Amino acid sequence: MTEIDFYFDFASPYGFIAAMQADAVARPMRWRPFLLGAVYKTVGQSPLDHRLKRDYVIGVDAPRMARRIGLELKVPAGFPEHALPASRAFYWIERQDPARAVAFAKEAYRRYWLHGCATSDAAVAVDAAASVGYDRSTAMAGMQEQATKQRLAFENDEAIRKGVFGSPFFLVDGEPFWGSDRMPLVMEAERERAG
Amino acid sequence: MTEIDFYFDFASPYGFIAAMQADAVARPMRWRPFLLGAVYKTVGQSPLDHRLKRDYVIGVDAPRMARRIGLELKVPAGFPEHALPASRAFYWIERQDPARAVAFAKEAYRRYWLHGCATSDAAVAVDAAASVGYDRSTAMAGMQEQATKQRLAFENDEAIRKGVFGSPFFLVDGEPFWGSDRMPLVMEAERERAG
Repeated sequence: MTEIDFYFDFASPYGFIAAMQADAVARPMRWRPFLLGAVYKTVGQSPLDHRLKRDYVIGVDAPRMARRIGLELKVPAGFPEHALPASRAFYWIERQDPARAVAFAKEAYRRYWLHGCATSDAAVAVDAAASVGYDRSTAMAGMQEQATKQRLAFENDEAIRKGVFGSPFFLVDGEPFWGSDRMPLVMEAERERAG
Repeated sequence: MTEIDFYFDFASPYGFIAAMQADAVARPMRWRPFLLGAVYKTVGQSPLDHRLKRDYVIGVDAPRMARRIGLELKVPAGFPEHALPASRAFYWIERQDPARAVAFAKEAYRRYWLHGCATSDAAVAVDAAASVGYDRSTAMAGMQEQATKQRLAFENDEAIRKGVFGSPFFLVDGEPFWGSDRMPLVMEAERERAG
């Protein structure tokens, strides 16, 4: 059974909402953090580049959708900023221990979207790595390795090649699903294909 | 009990999907066709201005969401084009008979999104008006009245003043809901407030 691709940006509130519900998806998922900003540089549009939509998403809809699963959103300090540190840390951890990378991703997401920590702050990503058992200075060094940086750059390009243009974004046997609100459909597609 | 504002563009597939489910909303709705293009001129972004998102919306997601309510989407000829004729015809009809304007809107939407008729073609709007009982030449003249044109221009500006930036867009006692996929939340909000 092929895995579901689960693309997400740590700076995305709907990515957070999806991550908090990811355990409800029975089929194995490949967690793929990426930088939406890098994708938008390629496709030429920012998802929140006008005030009305940003106010709606950040001030109304994302908090409302989070409350439906019992979570109280807190917008990360400095939002919107890149989430380079956690994205790199994820791939550094994954190389050693894929399951732990998923635990790390959830920890990092909670820090950004429940506690309002800045997504661009490397210390927050290091804290999240520490909370899943890593030594802080080892984690910091790992995030700065050339191989780690290259891996994230590869994954960003791979997302673009696969047509990913938003966060979260799911690919189920090539069928795209954009948005945390499409997760029920992801689960249906999964059940249908499982037969 | 105040009415729910239901803003939609006839050229919007999700607007169509919402219109086909509108009867499930118990609280009275004010149907407000508007031209999303006019709004985007103001807020400076087109919703489908990159190929990836348009391919996803038109080729994958909107047809998938329509199938879930038993409808097979057909993209209007020449899409994306403005839907000036039906938008004007709606307000011309509404001035005489609000209930019939809603019936007209559903007829027009079916022609565009089930039969693939061009949204910019005045003859299609006239056909839809005829199907709810209007004489064709009277309808055509009504669409071209200065008062009709001014009314649509007013409604477009009113949408902008209310912060509407997408289609469909609901306002329930001022709370905004964007997208046909938020209709279950519209219905919940409605029930909660009905107490």
